[in-house]
Amino acid sequence: MHKYHGNPIITPDMIPPSDKRLMVKGALNPGAVQLGKETLLLLRVAEGCIQTPGTVSIPTYEFTSSQPSLRVLHLSRSDPRVQIKDSRAVLVGDKEYVSTISHLRLARSSNGIDFKIDAKPFWMPVNPSEEFGVEDARITKIDDTYFINYTAVSGDSYGTSLLRTTDFKNVEYLGMIFSAPNKDVCIFPEKISGSYVALHRPFNHGFGKSSIWIAKSPDLIHWGQHQCLLRPGATLWESEKIGGGAPPIKTERGWLVIYHGKSLQGRADYYCLMVMLLDINDPSKIIYQGEQPILFPSASYETKGFVPNVVFLNGVVQTSDDSLLLYYSACDEVTCLAQCTIDDLIPQS
Amino acid sequence: MHKYHGNPIITPDMIPPSDKRLMVKGALNPGAVQLGKETLLLLRVAEGCIQTPGTVSIPTYEFTSSQPSLRVLHLSRSDPRVQIKDSRAVLVGDKEYVSTISHLRLARSSNGIDFKIDAKPFWMPVNPSEEFGVEDARITKIDDTYFINYTAVSGDSYGTSLLRTTDFKNVEYLGMIFSAPNKDVCIFPEKISGSYVALHRPFNHGFGKSSIWIAKSPDLIHWGQHQCLLRPGATLWESEKIGGGAPPIKTERGWLVIYHGKSLQGRADYYCLMVMLLDINDPSKIIYQGEQPILFPSASYETKGFVPNVVFLNGVVQTSDDSLLLYYSACDEVTCLAQCTIDDLIPQS
Repeated sequence: MHKYHGNPIITPDMIPPSDKRLMVKGALNPGAVQLGKETLLLLRVAEGCIQTPGTVSIPTYEFTSSQPSLRVLHLSRSDPRVQIKDSRAVLVGDKEYVSTISHLRLARSSNGIDFKIDAKPFWMPVNPSEEFGVEDARITKIDDTYFINYTAVSGDSYGTSLLRTTDFKNVEYLGMIFSAPNKDVCIFPEKISGSYVALHRPFNHGFGKSSIWIAKSPDLIHWGQHQCLLRPGATLWESEKIGGGAPPIKTERGWLVIYHGKSLQGRADYYCLMVMLLDINDPSKIIYQGEQPILFPSASYETKGFVPNVVFLNGVVQTSDDSLLLYYSACDEVTCLAQCTIDDLIPQS
Repeated sequence: MHKYHGNPIITPDMIPPSDKRLMVKGALNPGAVQLGKETLLLLRVAEGCIQTPGTVSIPTYEFTSSQPSLRVLHLSRSDPRVQIKDSRAVLVGDKEYVSTISHLRLARSSNGIDFKIDAKPFWMPVNPSEEFGVEDARITKIDDTYFINYTAVSGDSYGTSLLRTTDFKNVEYLGMIFSAPNKDVCIFPEKISGSYVALHRPFNHGFGKSSIWIAKSPDLIHWGQHQCLLRPGATLWESEKIGGGAPPIKTERGWLVIYHGKSLQGRADYYCLMVMLLDINDPSKIIYQGEQPILFPSASYETKGFVPNVVFLNGVVQTSDDSLLLYYSACDEVTCLAQCTIDDLIPQS
């Protein structure tokens, strides 16, 4: 695994904010796809309110008209109901808000390294299930159509919704495909034994710990036949929770799945990337599981930032020579690049 | 609402246990249906291990062969890892077990009041997603087929799975239709605007409180287009959480939905039954919501038992004269009967 020497390749200061009351805090967790000669990254752009002393300002979207409108709640920092939970969440009484609100934005490159950011958002919240923003796109190409799943966040928790496009200009909304609480959905790029297949990550906490599940669909819009596929704890690197990374990649040895593991090292949370292989004809069978992370937070841009010690992956571009470009995020803040071959990730058969 | 004077109508002592190591602790939360001249209740039979002094015995199912086999874990009560969480759950280290394990069993009556219990289970756990039992059946008749959804409980949390039958003898398993954590699923008895429709109850906790959601399906097996329909808090009786009751009933004024609300009264949890009407052509629209419970724990068999102050409903039989028979549970332990008309539940138009 070779981390690019010029990392990070995309930083928040490269992104014009979507509203003058907001500032960009993160350019992270992109879905990735090669579209003709262009590498497209569909970034999560996380924006926070410009804060004034003594005030906590929280962004949210309202849907009184057909368009979302940004509404900023201004609360006194001395209000006893207001509690800064961590860098990501604010409690107001017993209601939870997000400290940053996200939309999806395209970045484009002709060499896969140097990206130009679109001036306008690609996808903004469309209904109350997205009042706290849209996050973490993943792109799966099936035949000539691109399916984009993303996390819809609201006061009712987070679910996964789906878009369809052929050109990244005209986009169709297909509704929420996995109800809250569910994220980290990875759709396979073809039907297997007559069904579409996806990995998903319900918050199956209470009993057990957050695990990777697998489901089937006749049409990508409606899902069933859910099964728990992999639970946390196989290695120390994934002791606390796990979830899907990029959409699975077809290889001669099976479906290559890069997923994330969360572990507690001392007092700090670490997110790293792990790998497993699923049976090519029955992806509910795990045929190989790596024992060590393929990517671990070690560089300064991975260990110091908005949320320290996080590497996270939503998008991989497979180049023609068996090489993979991993567009991963560091510290929930910046986008980075790493390169490897499939042979680097899975053992020789 | 008339509670039957002979309540409860089914008690645990009427039920032969499924295994000699188990004793029946609850006969509760039945799905209900009229099949010819027979009223069928599909009970949740909750069984606990016969305990010996100084030992905590926990039931679970294993699936090493094609049949489930009961496995009883015997733990020392003085083991510091063993913690009796409440009447329903036992913690062993950080792993959670259930104190009782459930299967589904038929009860049959020719007058709707006096029930005979089948000697054998109707449905036993079939795979590891049911290792901690199967619970809380609901029955929806669509054309000539009965669809039975129930809660599948395991160390990976609880999801909702589906069965299909035409005669309650030959039964087909259709897989998990709502992944964990999700229960209280109520399937509508016909397609609406071309789709099957269900209410469901994800555990959307953290953000918000457990709410009633609505989803659509082309085939009852795969579900999508999820939306949050109703959140807790509309009345004091449903301040903590809500979830579906019996499958919706078609009326001239809209879809009649009886649901449960949980509230905290002083230091005690109360479960009662509430009512709402959904638009007949678009059930994602609530057109009426009751302000008072239609059923509330007040009789001694509703306030004293395995879990005090609980009334809970999964099954209603609509008799020909517009009268409803509610087969509800009290205290997560016994099955009771109440009778009312539709006019009793919803205001005159």
